[in-house]
Amino acid sequence: MPIPTIQWEKNLVKIIDQTELPIKKTFIKVTTASEMWNAIKQLKIRGAPAIGIAAAFGIYLGVRKFQSKDKKKFLGKLDDVCSYIGSSRPTAVNLFWAIDRIKRRVHVNSEASVHELKELVLREACLMIDEDNQVCRAIGEHGLKLIRDGHSLLTHCNAGGLATAMHGTALSPMFRAKELGYKIHVWVDETRPLLQGSRITAWELGEAEIPATIITDNMAATVMSQKKVDLVIVGADRIAANGDTANKIGTLGVAVLAREFGIPFYIAAPVSTIDREIKNGDEIPIEERDPREVTHGFGRQTAPDGIGVYNPAFDMTPAKYIKGIITEKGILNPPYKKSIGKIFNTS
Amino acid sequence: MPIPTIQWEKNLVKIIDQTELPIKKTFIKVTTASEMWNAIKQLKIRGAPAIGIAAAFGIYLGVRKFQSKDKKKFLGKLDDVCSYIGSSRPTAVNLFWAIDRIKRRVHVNSEASVHELKELVLREACLMIDEDNQVCRAIGEHGLKLIRDGHSLLTHCNAGGLATAMHGTALSPMFRAKELGYKIHVWVDETRPLLQGSRITAWELGEAEIPATIITDNMAATVMSQKKVDLVIVGADRIAANGDTANKIGTLGVAVLAREFGIPFYIAAPVSTIDREIKNGDEIPIEERDPREVTHGFGRQTAPDGIGVYNPAFDMTPAKYIKGIITEKGILNPPYKKSIGKIFNTS
Repeated sequence: MPIPTIQWEKNLVKIIDQTELPIKKTFIKVTTASEMWNAIKQLKIRGAPAIGIAAAFGIYLGVRKFQSKDKKKFLGKLDDVCSYIGSSRPTAVNLFWAIDRIKRRVHVNSEASVHELKELVLREACLMIDEDNQVCRAIGEHGLKLIRDGHSLLTHCNAGGLATAMHGTALSPMFRAKELGYKIHVWVDETRPLLQGSRITAWELGEAEIPATIITDNMAATVMSQKKVDLVIVGADRIAANGDTANKIGTLGVAVLAREFGIPFYIAAPVSTIDREIKNGDEIPIEERDPREVTHGFGRQTAPDGIGVYNPAFDMTPAKYIKGIITEKGILNPPYKKSIGKIFNTS
Repeated sequence: MPIPTIQWEKNLVKIIDQTELPIKKTFIKVTTASEMWNAIKQLKIRGAPAIGIAAAFGIYLGVRKFQSKDKKKFLGKLDDVCSYIGSSRPTAVNLFWAIDRIKRRVHVNSEASVHELKELVLREACLMIDEDNQVCRAIGEHGLKLIRDGHSLLTHCNAGGLATAMHGTALSPMFRAKELGYKIHVWVDETRPLLQGSRITAWELGEAEIPATIITDNMAATVMSQKKVDLVIVGADRIAANGDTANKIGTLGVAVLAREFGIPFYIAAPVSTIDREIKNGDEIPIEERDPREVTHGFGRQTAPDGIGVYNPAFDMTPAKYIKGIITEKGILNPPYKKSIGKIFNTS
């Protein structure tokens, strides 16, 4: 079973400290908003859905000791705490999604007492864990249909439990297969520059006792050409209305290679990852990150001074390489414009 | 102009210390066989052709102070020195190729005096530099025909000057283009696990003032898909009679991606790299290396304890992905069985 990333335990939040992985499994207890701010800031908790949930709990921790029964003052305090939590990782979209959701929850219950409102915030945060677990489990059930006993899968980066509350997206079908006793094996791309594959995905699979083998990203072609990969499942950062998908840098290469070697390539992501405002991948902006992640990524300099570096955080995989998109509402098949449209029109 | 990897200067060997790259450009003076043994052992000099040349000079340094005129004793000493040099990197094929060549040179001149034989050894070592320079320059001239002013090229690993005496194989056409004033740019795959691309190739291009940009291996698909690559040239470790090519791990992926995105993919290698005894790539054994190169590659552990690791040093690129093989005798075109056969039959 995967490890819960974040849990509410009586009167504190328990999170696994991802900065200690993969060397040590350390849980930390978070009891104040400023501890949560630090945990988010220092990447002790990371991954879009997990950050959102952490923010919601951080808001609760920031208001729970509010003493007065004056609701106006309480709402002022809530705003302050929300701004504070929002400053921990100002580029994380899910942080603001969670803040907005908590604020909305409070504002539509304006008749409630301060005490009740505090409870509402806590319940909303807990609900976000439950919802995330449901969505990820459903992705696992749908993805499971693609996996056969004995399969060897390949994944890139970390779309595992630690990016969500517990079950992950791309890894969820693998955890489910393991639960059912399937013997599977997973090739884990190390995923330069930040090595989320070898640091996090490999660790998660190890904890779940799923046999896994780390490869450097440039070895994927070899294991595919040797017919050692039956199925590829990766996550997504953003999916356009036509199915074009932005995900961690390197995903496009994996997709092209999979097609060349006749291996089905799937995206696993919640429906919330689909942005219908974006017609196709060309409209997805690609963030470039600090060149030092490439040249000084492991605590020492591995490239000459002054050299040019290109360090895009994501790449865009055209829909034509994607065999299907595994969501909590089922597996979407091409043409995606139609299958995506259908999901939204019936929901 | 590229930097000479190894030079004979009056009475000593001058080599660039590659273990200090890319941070410092340090030349070391080698005056004894044991200093050369250490330089080879510690990878201060590396790359198949360069190791061969270093070994030849190491043998000379080991016998040059031999005092007696007794030829039998000299030949005994020569054997001892050759065994000693051969123990520096016992898996390097070129080391033994060089040792055999020196021994042969001595034995076919059995009428010469000890003094003359010592001079012969030195001349043979110097000749190996000259030959390597000629071969690499010829590869540069032939490869130049593929490069246009303004081109952006991509290369993988290091098939540059520092693997040879000076000019390199894959980089030789780029150095030549630069000499002629072409404005070119090179994308450099960092080349995990050992980062020969970012550590060595990027440094060489910088020294030659050729604009270069490092990318992690998994970014090659992105720059290719963005139409930012006009031509790919990489080296080769071994080429089969049908053109299948073993080269640094990751080459196969680059080749597949290049074809997908319509970019010509070339191998650059001396004819001596072609092994006609090997019918096709399936017969080329692929060396697996220490898993710690992947999990502890930069001085700290980046993967969980006990995880599986696959670390092949090379991969095999089927001939169908290779647009041409740039050799010192011209560019070989498919079908390679025919073009390779022709080269050997006319030589």
